[in-house]
Amino acid sequence: MDSNSVSPMPELAPIAEFDKSPPSPPNEEVPMDDLPPPPATISQAEGKKIKVQRSRSYESDEHERGACEWCEYALVITLATILLIGVSALTVFWVFYYREGYAWADDLPDKQFNLHPTLMVAGFITFSGFSVLLYRICRCFRRIYVKLLHAIFHALAFPCIVIGFLAVLDYHNKKGINNFYSLHSWIGFVAMGLFGIQYAVGFFSFLLLLICNKGTAGFRASLVPVHAAFGILTFVLGVAACLTGLTEKAIFSLGSEVYATLNNEAIVINAIGMSIVAVAIVVLYTVRGTGGYRLRKVAAQHPS
Amino acid sequence: MDSNSVSPMPELAPIAEFDKSPPSPPNEEVPMDDLPPPPATISQAEGKKIKVQRSRSYESDEHERGACEWCEYALVITLATILLIGVSALTVFWVFYYREGYAWADDLPDKQFNLHPTLMVAGFITFSGFSVLLYRICRCFRRIYVKLLHAIFHALAFPCIVIGFLAVLDYHNKKGINNFYSLHSWIGFVAMGLFGIQYAVGFFSFLLLLICNKGTAGFRASLVPVHAAFGILTFVLGVAACLTGLTEKAIFSLGSEVYATLNNEAIVINAIGMSIVAVAIVVLYTVRGTGGYRLRKVAAQHPS
Repeated sequence: MDSNSVSPMPELAPIAEFDKSPPSPPNEEVPMDDLPPPPATISQAEGKKIKVQRSRSYESDEHERGACEWCEYALVITLATILLIGVSALTVFWVFYYREGYAWADDLPDKQFNLHPTLMVAGFITFSGFSVLLYRICRCFRRIYVKLLHAIFHALAFPCIVIGFLAVLDYHNKKGINNFYSLHSWIGFVAMGLFGIQYAVGFFSFLLLLICNKGTAGFRASLVPVHAAFGILTFVLGVAACLTGLTEKAIFSLGSEVYATLNNEAIVINAIGMSIVAVAIVVLYTVRGTGGYRLRKVAAQHPS
Repeated sequence: MDSNSVSPMPELAPIAEFDKSPPSPPNEEVPMDDLPPPPATISQAEGKKIKVQRSRSYESDEHERGACEWCEYALVITLATILLIGVSALTVFWVFYYREGYAWADDLPDKQFNLHPTLMVAGFITFSGFSVLLYRICRCFRRIYVKLLHAIFHALAFPCIVIGFLAVLDYHNKKGINNFYSLHSWIGFVAMGLFGIQYAVGFFSFLLLLICNKGTAGFRASLVPVHAAFGILTFVLGVAACLTGLTEKAIFSLGSEVYATLNNEAIVINAIGMSIVAVAIVVLYTVRGTGGYRLRKVAAQHPS
């Protein structure tokens, strides 16, 4: 989205996923293709100045923000944090209060199944959501630290998703239920596949290839928009998988007639689902395109 | 997303939702806030030239596209058309082949229910999907025609959603089933509410307020990014509602044991769900932010 006019997020907190420069210390020059096509009349010296100003801007841009922007910034961070932690907390509460907690034993397959919704919500929603959001929000840190945080949160999501998947696979085998028959499982399979590919590509390209910083800058820059687009797709598919899974679980566990009475457990399950919807709204709202940012900044740094 | 480097869609087919200028005949000047902040050294005469070139570009920009971009453009249009029509066609096939077709009569409530999935998929996916996509794709037309097409497709979606909703409400009442107990219904309620608000705001702001074109340009421009962001959210919520609804329907109609055998009908229901997922992927991929477009174009029109 072009946010030239109304940008509800602070203009000076751009989306780093869309930021195609390799991580660089504040005073190091960034490759030219990280910058917009320079206006014809900007001299080379001016161009250099822009580069330095731009790369420095990652260190500190607080002075350029208005009070309103700071308020909205704080509101989004607070709301996102409450929702992202809340959705996992509510899932754990649901399992302990209504589903008898967790286990991994042959004689307690139902308790083992409970690991599946908890770990999938933690992996696909809480950790992935934080990982995606902090790239939008943490603009005071140096880029490499933001990247590392992004990788660490995805590294936390990874075992959650793997163990969550193994838990349900083992539960199905123990109970003699077919695997991969439902729409939920098909969506989940695509989401897990995309997550794995995204994680491998991201780790290799944006962290490992830093060994050869200058030589791979162009390749890494060209990969960023693809990584960002598929990252958001993976997140949306994770949300869809969680919502269909909760629907399945509600009907299987409560039975359609009890579910239709909207008893307490049904309300809790629906509340988990709606919290996931709220997380999706906040994340999609926050990471919506702000591609015009850098050029606006260049223009702002060269007022007439 | 900043698409300065790798933009899989043609750069010269920008997202019109993100286009904040009021519709204007090719040679009419567009308001200043529709343009990026002009580089300091561009004179007023040059600025005027940019405006004229820019507004003209809506009429014809084919000469600026490469063969590869045209190929991808054609591929996306073809794929989107097949998927958007295919998902509704598959739903109609499912209802006629497995669910005995349609009716609206007191003695045939199950046939009446069948209107619900068909009309909701048509409204939230096919018509809304076309409406969102054509704003990205139809760049050869004048803007007012694109807006009218956008409004017409949403006008087609509107009765589908209303009748689809009434069909299930009446079905529940006839069968004595509670309303609004499931996660699916809660998500659907939010999606319908957002759809209604979006439609009312869009119709009033971007069509009715054209009566006072110049006086309302600023207001309409400021509303565009909000309308675009909430439009994509509404579409994603529609997708989530359809997927949870299909999951419910599969379990209620087939029963969990038959569903687990993945019989032919289960495969068809899952295929409808996966087609909706594919539509979501194509739509989200196509309408991802391209906010940098206009500034890139200005820069391209002023090569060094």
